[in-house]
Amino acid sequence: MLAANRVAIEGVDPEIDGGRFPAKTVAGHPFVVEVDVFGDGHDKVSAAILWRPKGVDNWDEAPLAPLVNDRWRGHFVPTDVMGHEYTIIAWRDTFESWREEVAKKHNAGVPIALELEEGVHLVRGSVGCGRGTVAEQARLAELAAAMEEAGENERFAVLMTDKTAALMRRAGRRANLSHYERILSLTVDRKAAAFSAWYEMMPRSQSGDVTRHGTFDDVIARLPYVAGLGFDVLYFTPIHPIGTTNRKGRNNSLTPAPDDPGSPYAIGSAEGGHDAIHPELGTFDDFKRLVAAAHDHGLEIALDYAIQCSPDHPWIKAHHDWFDWRPDGSIKFAENPPKKYEDIVNVRFYEGDRPLPALWRAQRDIILFWVAHGVKIFRVDNPHTKAFPFWEWMIDDVRTKHPDVIFLAEAFTRPKVMHRLAKIGFNQSYSYFTWRNTKAELTEYMTELTTTEKRHTMRVNFFVNTPDINPVFLQTSGRPGFQSRLVLAASLAGNYGVYNGYEICEWEPVPGKEEYLNSEKYELRAWNFDQPGNIREDIALMNRLRQTHPALQEFANIAFYQMWNDQILYYGKRTADLSSFLLFAVSLDPHNGQGAHFEVPLWEFGLGDDASIEVEDLVADYSFTWHGKVQHVYIDPHQRPYFIWRLVDPRGQR
Amino acid sequence: MLAANRVAIEGVDPEIDGGRFPAKTVAGHPFVVEVDVFGDGHDKVSAAILWRPKGVDNWDEAPLAPLVNDRWRGHFVPTDVMGHEYTIIAWRDTFESWREEVAKKHNAGVPIALELEEGVHLVRGSVGCGRGTVAEQARLAELAAAMEEAGENERFAVLMTDKTAALMRRAGRRANLSHYERILSLTVDRKAAAFSAWYEMMPRSQSGDVTRHGTFDDVIARLPYVAGLGFDVLYFTPIHPIGTTNRKGRNNSLTPAPDDPGSPYAIGSAEGGHDAIHPELGTFDDFKRLVAAAHDHGLEIALDYAIQCSPDHPWIKAHHDWFDWRPDGSIKFAENPPKKYEDIVNVRFYEGDRPLPALWRAQRDIILFWVAHGVKIFRVDNPHTKAFPFWEWMIDDVRTKHPDVIFLAEAFTRPKVMHRLAKIGFNQSYSYFTWRNTKAELTEYMTELTTTEKRHTMRVNFFVNTPDINPVFLQTSGRPGFQSRLVLAASLAGNYGVYNGYEICEWEPVPGKEEYLNSEKYELRAWNFDQPGNIREDIALMNRLRQTHPALQEFANIAFYQMWNDQILYYGKRTADLSSFLLFAVSLDPHNGQGAHFEVPLWEFGLGDDASIEVEDLVADYSFTWHGKVQHVYIDPHQRPYFIWRLVDPRGQR
Repeated sequence: MLAANRVAIEGVDPEIDGGRFPAKTVAGHPFVVEVDVFGDGHDKVSAAILWRPKGVDNWDEAPLAPLVNDRWRGHFVPTDVMGHEYTIIAWRDTFESWREEVAKKHNAGVPIALELEEGVHLVRGSVGCGRGTVAEQARLAELAAAMEEAGENERFAVLMTDKTAALMRRAGRRANLSHYERILSLTVDRKAAAFSAWYEMMPRSQSGDVTRHGTFDDVIARLPYVAGLGFDVLYFTPIHPIGTTNRKGRNNSLTPAPDDPGSPYAIGSAEGGHDAIHPELGTFDDFKRLVAAAHDHGLEIALDYAIQCSPDHPWIKAHHDWFDWRPDGSIKFAENPPKKYEDIVNVRFYEGDRPLPALWRAQRDIILFWVAHGVKIFRVDNPHTKAFPFWEWMIDDVRTKHPDVIFLAEAFTRPKVMHRLAKIGFNQSYSYFTWRNTKAELTEYMTELTTTEKRHTMRVNFFVNTPDINPVFLQTSGRPGFQSRLVLAASLAGNYGVYNGYEICEWEPVPGKEEYLNSEKYELRAWNFDQPGNIREDIALMNRLRQTHPALQEFANIAFYQMWNDQILYYGKRTADLSSFLLFAVSLDPHNGQGAHFEVPLWEFGLGDDASIEVEDLVADYSFTWHGKVQHVYIDPHQRPYFIWRLVDPRGQR
Repeated sequence: MLAANRVAIEGVDPEIDGGRFPAKTVAGHPFVVEVDVFGDGHDKVSAAILWRPKGVDNWDEAPLAPLVNDRWRGHFVPTDVMGHEYTIIAWRDTFESWREEVAKKHNAGVPIALELEEGVHLVRGSVGCGRGTVAEQARLAELAAAMEEAGENERFAVLMTDKTAALMRRAGRRANLSHYERILSLTVDRKAAAFSAWYEMMPRSQSGDVTRHGTFDDVIARLPYVAGLGFDVLYFTPIHPIGTTNRKGRNNSLTPAPDDPGSPYAIGSAEGGHDAIHPELGTFDDFKRLVAAAHDHGLEIALDYAIQCSPDHPWIKAHHDWFDWRPDGSIKFAENPPKKYEDIVNVRFYEGDRPLPALWRAQRDIILFWVAHGVKIFRVDNPHTKAFPFWEWMIDDVRTKHPDVIFLAEAFTRPKVMHRLAKIGFNQSYSYFTWRNTKAELTEYMTELTTTEKRHTMRVNFFVNTPDINPVFLQTSGRPGFQSRLVLAASLAGNYGVYNGYEICEWEPVPGKEEYLNSEKYELRAWNFDQPGNIREDIALMNRLRQTHPALQEFANIAFYQMWNDQILYYGKRTADLSSFLLFAVSLDPHNGQGAHFEVPLWEFGLGDDASIEVEDLVADYSFTWHGKVQHVYIDPHQRPYFIWRLVDPRGQR
């Protein structure tokens, strides 16, 4: 009863699952908090955000300002990449209440001598309250003494000034100071967690010769190419020794030829496990040179973290209790009954109800091992089939030591499972993007991601394809489909990715499936990325625009505008100050020309429907003027299936 | 790490502000809980609700069943009027997962001998796990022993039966048993908290003679009238001694005549305070007879709890520190600057930051005093101008001793303040109903109340008028407006109320205001409730329908249906089993006839658009048949501004 909050503090946003999970942001970015704050009766209240890096004792304070209907908003800008905490305080603002009362009575001609006396008491009562600087406290004491001696007119003249109000705001007593019940957590990541362009390759296919296993040196030779396309992250499928027991052959067959390299996801052989390098790729020295060379090209290496083991993995002999064994003494293979995956076995994170801490630490140590070798980004294979508590512990433990490590969850499963993985710590998440093709689907999905709680928890990475996903749409779309899906991924999401082959519109499936025919997963490939019809120019353009237009470096800053044609997705991305304002019109029909009238969002600049606005065509690179809100576009997919326009803020040259 | 939940439990509904506040329900009513539950990987999971009265050690368990997309639903039926707790448990259902795996493999013709051996191990592993009855554990042990001896065919035949599954469900081990992080609170009220019809009167105006102050005996004489109208609760404005200092005169004037009785809200005189009875009303013995007589008429007495004091209240001398004093030694009157209310002063709940526990207890004791005198329902005047922590403590303290006490919050203020009062303990809340007149306003408001979190926290009481609210709509609507607003209140809300005079369509305002002219608040009145044009029949009808049709005894069971006329509000109320299904068509236009086509919700019964359905007209009391979904109604407000139909469930005589 005595400690209860007199001022109500409710409805904090973001607050994830009652504070169970942290919200996410990036360093240097304003983190916005909203909250309902109100008191009883007519007194005015004030409120502030308290925030600090985890482990720091003192709070920083950021102001909250009222919006409407008892809703308040404020922000702070964390600069350290590490866990943070925030909460809300509020108090009865007795001096502001007093000022308002006195002003009203003064204006109504009511006597205010007693009220002014009460005002002097408020100042006196704040002397020594512990707030403000020493100098401000001294000024408060002087003010109190002077006012105690002063007459009514002087009291009114001095106490009602903004200067006195400002002093009281900084150094005055906060009546009935109330603390929100919970301290909330905030994950502050480096920018690459929210904004990155990935290029995925299999190092073994980089020799340019299907008869020669690629090496790290071959990859080094490819770096200028990848960097030239403008990517930030170069992601490798697993680089570890590959098991031979039950090895898969070409096109996922069970009858491999003697020289078939096997799936790189069947990790572990006599040559080592997750902390070893497949000998044909090179040595740790080679890897070190590769990481350094990538860095010189502005590229960061991301590794695959796939927890399963081949039957030849050293752990199976060394750690019998980390695996499930059957009554006949055989090991339990991974399966999705009645299907069995006999080239891999799963570790078990629990023995019955008991976690296996040694295994958890060993798994964590694999990450720390590669961090020590210069890798800070991990794409995690199938995390939804491993225990949630393991991820929550492991990611927190690694990031406590290395806050700049980034984990991408490769889960394609039910929505709540994917969201849970994001909440328990994954910094990025694969998405449903590859299966969202229509205007309605894309609009609904983006609205869910950018307007619900997920905007604080789940950072999607829109891969246009992966070694496992050859999207059905692209199997028949031809080149225009590849172009438009690229533009969508690169502009809709902060993080996006391309798996090699996409740039040459590789499309041939295992018939009737979403799998690539002759997949690299089971054989060496040699790619010719110079072949005619490639879309390297589109890729380079999109990556360049992402780097040069701040509107593309945020995620939730999207608006869908009116285009009277369901085959054209039309949306804007803009910074809060409108200095960067891009419009995208992307055709979803790769076969036919599509035309439509559409609305130029003149109202966003406060312009009337008849106004004119300067526009830059960022693809064709020229400027023109739109007169009036309704314009028309015709998109010939074979010429260029998308338009990208920049609106020039008419309110000033920025 | 070790204690973390392997099975995810999220999104519990209801959960009010992360568990900070209780949800509300009534005894004997199914309390429905929904939650997201899912595990990692492919294993099946199961889940249950745990619930118990507060202070009880053991949990009761109620099952949860999956809906779609990892959402689960279940319910329990609390029977005790007191605080309860509930939470969620979930576990990996290893036996059900095993059954599914074996069934799939068996159907695919895969060998299952090892799997059957694993099934035997699951049974053996549950022996002695502590679940189920002694007999069930004995059967488990027998089963395990028998299966260990059995061959493959017998194992398959026995282990795969539903009988074995049921035994394992009841007595088997629950793998990775996970507990939701929070224990949630639930307020279980008696039914009258959610379903009641109030009649408000001023006892002093019940003599039938404006020159004679009414008494409790006069009220006793009025009981047959109120009971005859079908009300449950008879609510009195304050019955305490009234101050004389700065007493208000007729129509809120500052110049009272010598015989003016004053506002009953100026509580306290030399004759006593909140625990005294105004002498002209009678004695405590009279009051006791009144409570008993009301009870005999099926009526419960509700009292007004208005915390303010007249300047003559005994507390002002006895408890100097409970009031705010000004620098000149004068008492601080209630005010809304620059307005002053010189007939009342407020107590202060805090002296600076320090609560005043003696005052809090004294306020609580007033409630306990009247509870001891047989009163269990309190209408609280202006709770939003008193400190929230006081209410939260006081209501909880009183209801711990007397769980059947009901508090109605008379706050007409900003929405979040009103909601907070509901969350901190008020069992009922006044509402915005009197200011919601159009079809859009009523639909939006009801949708907010019945589909958001408020359905679990805020039980509105729809008063059609009060001594302070003479709704503008009724000032010009004439009798039809009174009828339709009555029907709306009585059918839309579980709790509704009528202030006397409504039944004779009393409408005359202080010009330009929402106040009644010659308000009873400042003078004695004599009412003639028999006067022509009264709507007593409508009132009695509505109260009778409320008692006899279960659909009207719930709140959130409303659906708005299609009526192609914005002047007619058309909605259905129905029980979950459809055995009670009422339709209301209420004209919002009190002046003109309104007709429209409308949709009969045949689909709710699974009927096609061409089907026929039996209908009872509950006002005119006859039956007929509607053929087809679209029907037409014409409402002449001067004849009867509303229709009420009961749909007879065609799927069987119920």
